[in-house]
Amino acid sequence: MTATITRPKLEPAVPPSHARLRVGVIGYGYWGPNLARNIAQCSETALWAISDLSPKRLASARDLFPLTTLTADYHDLLRDPDLDAVFIATPPESHHDLVIEALEAGKHVLVEKPLATSVEDAEHMAAVAERCGRVLTVDHTFLFTGAVRRMKEYFDRGEVGDVYYYDSIRINLGLFNHETNVIWDLAPHDLSIMLHLLDQPVRRISAFGARHVDTNVENIAYLTLEFDSDLLAHFHVNWLAPAKVRRTIIGGSRKMFVYDDGEASEKLRVYDSGAHLCDSREDMYRAFVEYRTGDVIAPRLDKTEALAAETAHFARAVRGLEAPISGAELGIEVVRVISAAQESLCRGGVPIEVSR
Amino acid sequence: MTATITRPKLEPAVPPSHARLRVGVIGYGYWGPNLARNIAQCSETALWAISDLSPKRLASARDLFPLTTLTADYHDLLRDPDLDAVFIATPPESHHDLVIEALEAGKHVLVEKPLATSVEDAEHMAAVAERCGRVLTVDHTFLFTGAVRRMKEYFDRGEVGDVYYYDSIRINLGLFNHETNVIWDLAPHDLSIMLHLLDQPVRRISAFGARHVDTNVENIAYLTLEFDSDLLAHFHVNWLAPAKVRRTIIGGSRKMFVYDDGEASEKLRVYDSGAHLCDSREDMYRAFVEYRTGDVIAPRLDKTEALAAETAHFARAVRGLEAPISGAELGIEVVRVISAAQESLCRGGVPIEVSR
Amino acid sequence: MTATITRPKLEPAVPPSHARLRVGVIGYGYWGPNLARNIAQCSETALWAISDLSPKRLASARDLFPLTTLTADYHDLLRDPDLDAVFIATPPESHHDLVIEALEAGKHVLVEKPLATSVEDAEHMAAVAERCGRVLTVDHTFLFTGAVRRMKEYFDRGEVGDVYYYDSIRINLGLFNHETNVIWDLAPHDLSIMLHLLDQPVRRISAFGARHVDTNVENIAYLTLEFDSDLLAHFHVNWLAPAKVRRTIIGGSRKMFVYDDGEASEKLRVYDSGAHLCDSREDMYRAFVEYRTGDVIAPRLDKTEALAAETAHFARAVRGLEAPISGAELGIEVVRVISAAQESLCRGGVPIEVSR
Amino acid sequence: MTATITRPKLEPAVPPSHARLRVGVIGYGYWGPNLARNIAQCSETALWAISDLSPKRLASARDLFPLTTLTADYHDLLRDPDLDAVFIATPPESHHDLVIEALEAGKHVLVEKPLATSVEDAEHMAAVAERCGRVLTVDHTFLFTGAVRRMKEYFDRGEVGDVYYYDSIRINLGLFNHETNVIWDLAPHDLSIMLHLLDQPVRRISAFGARHVDTNVENIAYLTLEFDSDLLAHFHVNWLAPAKVRRTIIGGSRKMFVYDDGEASEKLRVYDSGAHLCDSREDMYRAFVEYRTGDVIAPRLDKTEALAAETAHFARAVRGLEAPISGAELGIEVVRVISAAQESLCRGGVPIEVSR
Repeated sequence: MTATITRPKLEPAVPPSHARLRVGVIGYGYWGPNLARNIAQCSETALWAISDLSPKRLASARDLFPLTTLTADYHDLLRDPDLDAVFIATPPESHHDLVIEALEAGKHVLVEKPLATSVEDAEHMAAVAERCGRVLTVDHTFLFTGAVRRMKEYFDRGEVGDVYYYDSIRINLGLFNHETNVIWDLAPHDLSIMLHLLDQPVRRISAFGARHVDTNVENIAYLTLEFDSDLLAHFHVNWLAPAKVRRTIIGGSRKMFVYDDGEASEKLRVYDSGAHLCDSREDMYRAFVEYRTGDVIAPRLDKTEALAAETAHFARAVRGLEAPISGAELGIEVVRVISAAQESLCRGGVPIEVSR
Repeated sequence: MTATITRPKLEPAVPPSHARLRVGVIGYGYWGPNLARNIAQCSETALWAISDLSPKRLASARDLFPLTTLTADYHDLLRDPDLDAVFIATPPESHHDLVIEALEAGKHVLVEKPLATSVEDAEHMAAVAERCGRVLTVDHTFLFTGAVRRMKEYFDRGEVGDVYYYDSIRINLGLFNHETNVIWDLAPHDLSIMLHLLDQPVRRISAFGARHVDTNVENIAYLTLEFDSDLLAHFHVNWLAPAKVRRTIIGGSRKMFVYDDGEASEKLRVYDSGAHLCDSREDMYRAFVEYRTGDVIAPRLDKTEALAAETAHFARAVRGLEAPISGAELGIEVVRVISAAQESLCRGGVPIEVSR
Repeated sequence: MTATITRPKLEPAVPPSHARLRVGVIGYGYWGPNLARNIAQCSETALWAISDLSPKRLASARDLFPLTTLTADYHDLLRDPDLDAVFIATPPESHHDLVIEALEAGKHVLVEKPLATSVEDAEHMAAVAERCGRVLTVDHTFLFTGAVRRMKEYFDRGEVGDVYYYDSIRINLGLFNHETNVIWDLAPHDLSIMLHLLDQPVRRISAFGARHVDTNVENIAYLTLEFDSDLLAHFHVNWLAPAKVRRTIIGGSRKMFVYDDGEASEKLRVYDSGAHLCDSREDMYRAFVEYRTGDVIAPRLDKTEALAAETAHFARAVRGLEAPISGAELGIEVVRVISAAQESLCRGGVPIEVSR
Repeated sequence: MTATITRPKLEPAVPPSHARLRVGVIGYGYWGPNLARNIAQCSETALWAISDLSPKRLASARDLFPLTTLTADYHDLLRDPDLDAVFIATPPESHHDLVIEALEAGKHVLVEKPLATSVEDAEHMAAVAERCGRVLTVDHTFLFTGAVRRMKEYFDRGEVGDVYYYDSIRINLGLFNHETNVIWDLAPHDLSIMLHLLDQPVRRISAFGARHVDTNVENIAYLTLEFDSDLLAHFHVNWLAPAKVRRTIIGGSRKMFVYDDGEASEKLRVYDSGAHLCDSREDMYRAFVEYRTGDVIAPRLDKTEALAAETAHFARAVRGLEAPISGAELGIEVVRVISAAQESLCRGGVPIEVSR
């Protein structure tokens, strides 16, 4: 029944360089085509094979990647000894089993966010990756955007000061996924960015949501996150917004950021207090008053497509040249916070401790 | 000690029309000059007198309004039998006593928001206004903007459908007021707009906040409001934002609004589903999918300054020609919700029922 | 010397439908990859072959289109009897000879703008296409955007009224092309859109420009176009702008448009006078005054990539199912106006009649 | 017949400081109220008197400035020995006679732009001011905005490098003034800013325009200005635009500016090449390529209302403390260029030398 299609032999004149990582894609639905295109275009990877259950999707893949093996059965990929790694873009419920199977077949894995649908699953996957000696990364794509990488530099150099708040909005008129609510769908983006930048564990979370279109899952939610410091974080995720907004505001004692992904050319704006030391509350007060009077800088951002940077990084991580930026540890932490948010949501917004 | 300055006699050739309402201003600090200017420019009112404790502020008033009585003692206004009404722009803590005194002196009153700092005070003020037969209105200025008036027409004509969510952001780099936190300062604006538009009582509220600059009051807060319907409302108020944002998104089953006060010419955008009846969940689902494909309309808005419209409305309300749009009842409800928010804030975000 | 690479036989299981138009791409530099991708993805075309002189570019094409014939010699395409059409993306100077050769080899042709570098060449190319019975279209891509198609509907339905002015800005920090100036590079976009929408021949043109970076070609220019009516058109083209701006404003007696290609979601705004008949100057005056008070509409636009729509349209034009939207006639007119602009530029801005 | 109203005696307790410049306003129509308000609020001036032919306008002035002398006859101002200066906001045709009369009556003068309707008149006015020893300034308000002052600092410090182009758009749906065309109405704003910043005389100008609503005057025009250097300047002025746009782009060899007056908080954006020395064409080429990769800065701007800064500057200029920023010389130059533009317009766009 499985319509396995064997890959035509590559012409010897232009073989894919054997230095390239041979990567397969499992799941060619909404996101898979982006993965495939980036694997094909990256100079460090070769698009070796694609699997999807839908013949229509496979036919569409055939138009663009006629030399790539196409199959309805992902097992064809896992048992192909030439294949080095798989990018998995299937529904979250399937991640645990698929990733485990791929790791145990000796493949390195990049899997869509969220890593898993429970902390237990996520931790199990990390343990299997460890045991198999394979790289397991989560596709938190935004970590590889020019804007987030630029903000990370500010944070790493200690230029932000104490972080006071982290406020994120991610709303649009979205595709409804009846298997999962809007928190599981959208919040991993902002959580991964925040955890990547801040390096502070979330202590407590409160979540409110509502169901307006589908009776089973929330289409709007507000998450409030507390930390051991006086940092306050907040996410608004929403599938029923009339306009697409993706904007994060970060307030620090020395710098503030407005990161607006909807801006065409100036996605990041940096505001400087001009006061690098605040010896007293009075000084800090004065420093803030100066915020409004300082120059605003829209720094130069690398315009490389995030997924292109991520694909190249994955290849280098597999070769041991770079430590994974978006590894299993970050993936687990995202699932841990989302799970606590889910519990708070179910209990009417009561704040829930994030257990560790 | 009170440096009372007697008003020069007006020239008989150009007396203020006796048809005009004679209005005094108590408090000429941040907002008082706007009140004074609008009273002076409104064809239905005359700027009769101004009181403020600061000689410097009085001197500044003298430059613009040389015929207006200026005094350091507001009692001069209350005992002036020619004065019909007072606009009170003093700190919230002083509202209760001042308003009561003014009402009992027979003056009609417009007072800055919030009406009072406790529900008890607010209800007492309303009762005194009732007993004295005087108009008591709260300066919820935004109700008189072209954008809110235009949205109100949509709501009143039933064109919005079921309201799913009401999301508001009001952030800026603000003046710090050490007497009160950011909720008491900014949230009354959004609460008054929302209550004016929706006509649904808030059932439960949860508030989170943090103190970063001053140890006594919160400079950032998130409020989540629940109702008897499945409406979810949320306000973000913040004094430490690098840029000024005042944006409200309202999601209804038939129309959605984006009201962005920072836009120069198109403050309101209306999105239409194109589907006026949804017989089933499936229909509603389809209707939403169409939202994204519909035309967007930026309706014509009246550009009259809100405070000018409000001043004229106040004069007509005093004369019994119009029912007060922003009367004591709305003012009490705002204080009731804010007080519950304050309690939730003090209790770490636990949702609090709004008692009635 | 020509490194011709034979296309591997397609697997019989998934052959390209023989109903598909087999298209080759000549020139795989800046724009060619976009042509190739759209040909590959279009359900009515198959990407049959690509030629480019650069081995590096061919290697890059190989990564994405491994089954496509790649060659350094475009003659390989022209003599391939299986190939139906070619898309030519080479420098303007080469268009005339290449297009003639392709047409005479029996291929249908889509060629980059401008069609040619002289009116004589352009007319010759059209004549050869006519003689050979082949379709010749010019890649004026913007005609196929959702915004231009939507404006065309307004014009075709007579809803714009008399057109008063057409003002276009197309500026960016551009790649410098030392063979041609900024007028030949950018103005064909706006000219083709304007001629497509308005259907009025340009009578007279005046052009001013300056050379700041390269002594041979102008990097900034202003074109003023006059017509037999009182329509006034104007284009600003500029390679040295710090920010990218592509905005057209069209003023008509009944509707006005602002078409801003830099806007993410509302590229087109339509302003309505609300007055459909103006019996007198006074009426027209009043109608205009109402423009500012009317609603603004951002109509729904088809979001299909312009080049995808254009590729499908080309296939249907070849099959005789649709008349070419961007045929040789429009291409000649664009060259005619640009040539007159060039003459005016050389003569210090003196207005030049567009001869016909 | 003249309804002269004598100013009531000021109370001795609060006299206007005799250190204040006593200023009168002639013409209280569209712009006069702004002049009056700023004179009243400025600590260096006193609003002494207002004249206007319309009783309705005078009544409106009375509401705001009840102590100010109001009169229908401007001669009352000129013969008042206590009056130091007049601000004249009457139609351009009246400027010459009124200004001469005021200067000869010993008053210092600020007059609306344009200074006059002919170069001869403008030069005559300057000569009379010189002879009378009185200050004559033109109200080119934009010179006093925070954005223009900030740009002027960049230019004065030589940070802009060679100026390549100056491109300005000033369009809106305007009030129609049947006495004058859109060039005379709007272009003085941009001309005065450009001449203030650049300090290069215009050599040649070409103007195109069209009349769509009124048969007597142009409602849209394009001006192209040439200089002795390779600077190219261009203005688009338009009364029939659906949206208000006021944007200037200045391209220099070391810095570029985008000055957008429609932006709420970041009116000025500065782009830096990062390359301060260009030894060769190749270097310059490279420098430009880097423009796109540099940071963008939105510098802090003084938010003082331009007219407030201008009023205070006028008072200091009268006292000899500052040289007039917008004196007769600049006013004459603006009229000279506009007059040449008018001649080009009448001759179908033929470039006209600006004679001196």
